[in-house]
Amino acid sequence: MPETLADIGEFGLIDRIDKLLREEGARLPEKTLGIGDDCASFVSRPGYELLVTCDAIVEGRHYLPRFISPIDLGRRAMDLNISDIGAMGGHTLYALVSLGLRADTPVKDVEAMYRGFIAELNPFDAAIIGGNLTKSEGANFIDITLIGEIESGKSVRRSTAKPGNTILVTGYPGQAAAGLQILLKARPVDDVRAHPLVQAYNTPSHRAREGEAVAGAGLATAMIDTSDGLLGDLGHICDESGVGARLIQENLPISSALREAAEQMKQEPLDFVLQDSDDYELIITCPPEHVDGICSLITSLSHIPVTEIGTITEKIDGIKLISHDGIPRDMTPSGWDHFAK
Amino acid sequence: MPETLADIGEFGLIDRIDKLLREEGARLPEKTLGIGDDCASFVSRPGYELLVTCDAIVEGRHYLPRFISPIDLGRRAMDLNISDIGAMGGHTLYALVSLGLRADTPVKDVEAMYRGFIAELNPFDAAIIGGNLTKSEGANFIDITLIGEIESGKSVRRSTAKPGNTILVTGYPGQAAAGLQILLKARPVDDVRAHPLVQAYNTPSHRAREGEAVAGAGLATAMIDTSDGLLGDLGHICDESGVGARLIQENLPISSALREAAEQMKQEPLDFVLQDSDDYELIITCPPEHVDGICSLITSLSHIPVTEIGTITEKIDGIKLISHDGIPRDMTPSGWDHFAK
Repeated sequence: MPETLADIGEFGLIDRIDKLLREEGARLPEKTLGIGDDCASFVSRPGYELLVTCDAIVEGRHYLPRFISPIDLGRRAMDLNISDIGAMGGHTLYALVSLGLRADTPVKDVEAMYRGFIAELNPFDAAIIGGNLTKSEGANFIDITLIGEIESGKSVRRSTAKPGNTILVTGYPGQAAAGLQILLKARPVDDVRAHPLVQAYNTPSHRAREGEAVAGAGLATAMIDTSDGLLGDLGHICDESGVGARLIQENLPISSALREAAEQMKQEPLDFVLQDSDDYELIITCPPEHVDGICSLITSLSHIPVTEIGTITEKIDGIKLISHDGIPRDMTPSGWDHFAK
Repeated sequence: MPETLADIGEFGLIDRIDKLLREEGARLPEKTLGIGDDCASFVSRPGYELLVTCDAIVEGRHYLPRFISPIDLGRRAMDLNISDIGAMGGHTLYALVSLGLRADTPVKDVEAMYRGFIAELNPFDAAIIGGNLTKSEGANFIDITLIGEIESGKSVRRSTAKPGNTILVTGYPGQAAAGLQILLKARPVDDVRAHPLVQAYNTPSHRAREGEAVAGAGLATAMIDTSDGLLGDLGHICDESGVGARLIQENLPISSALREAAEQMKQEPLDFVLQDSDDYELIITCPPEHVDGICSLITSLSHIPVTEIGTITEKIDGIKLISHDGIPRDMTPSGWDHFAK
């Protein structure tokens, strides 16, 4: 029987995590008070704004333990928050990790999750400075609050896209959604973990470094990550900015892996690209003259493709998809709605 | 059938909450970007440290819906976090509210919870600047991250108590724990909501204003709230400060309501005072010459009694309770351990 949280208790678990953080070389910057007091504390740099975000993932809802290892789960939970900081152009500094765990959860799984958190935080020199552990009676959950910083005035909002702006997207949105479908449809005998789309789902990449660079260079008018799906998040930009958008269907980036998988599943690749998502790509809007600058900046960081997918229009035009035959179709943004029937 | 989250969806709920925050006069300070972007953002004041804490409460584990109204639940969830900020001496500025909710949760209950949050935040001029809504498959949960500030160098830690310091406690720890027992033991026909101990459980008071004043005056050496129980939290101070403690049994504050209820339940009032807790009183340590200053400062704010309950000793002495007959008893700190068998 593996050792469980019931065996070592809350304070035993806190000690284990504390030890693990030290062993794994987790950062604990000076002037920061971490785990072990009522609050964590830190000092903000003059001339910088602070950014703060929180996102929870719930077992059975956002992940299925049989499909994802605890370390990958930790990485994914951290990445989706790092992505939010990066989508404003910020740099991640501190994390607070709040876990709801059943008492029968193996201690080694919790430790592996923390290894995943640290693996994602260390490249930013970011530290876990606090959190909360609580017993869950039902599904486990991971709720992370991240604090980041950005030079004052440099943050990129959702609300500042302008008609005439070019719409760019990084990478291949929709791959993770297709990966999830592959996992759900796999028979018990199939080992699909190595499938590139399954990997896109289990270990998605954030584009936080890219977002930070684009914001630092002052090249974008609006930015958002695709966590609610390309269309859903473009919809957020349009709502908040009071604009419309025209997407060119043939420009939407579809990887060969996605095209192939969609064909096997008898689904339209476009549905994956536009709708569902567990990807953390960036949608960026900018004046047309900044497109080259943004593309070369991002490519210099990560060889991630950046694709021009359309243009911001007037609000009255709504969101339109221009198909191969030139006919515009009205698109209702249908982001990932957590309570939808 | 009341309207549920399944009826209005996640984005519908966000709109409702946004509307409610405006109607209820919730604060949204300038220079703060609130709900509606990837992150919230704010600027810290020069000369101030930031404090950050998070605490989650889970249905069935930390509260039972049949015993607490949604507005009181909202107040309690917020208070326990405000208490953590206050126990460091800080002032609450911003909240991020992360909710895990079943789709059948009535919308009006969520709105009432937010009214509870706002009722506790408004006295501090504090704002909800972000959060997360997610569907829960099992128990609902409320996870709140609070950000506060304190003048640099003024925060009061757990780790700085000194032998010879006096130990003070505010109010009557243990009342909430007794209130919970009354709720659990009540027959369906009993209406115990008006019982003072039940009220202490359902609508506990934080001592954040008091903590802020004590820290501001520089009178305390260590401070902590009693959320893990008087003995558990005194144990945290002793562990982190490397000290022991001697508690004088006859000095421990026991309200007449608690004494009476304990007698009816055939339990020792002292067990409530020392062990379990859902109170948010403060344990304060200070040099003996500051006791009067702290007592008069706190009494001037809130008429809350402050009681001298003992003395900080050397680490080697451990934690001792001196009973009426003068005999010292070893006390094992037994805080509220979330995963204990």
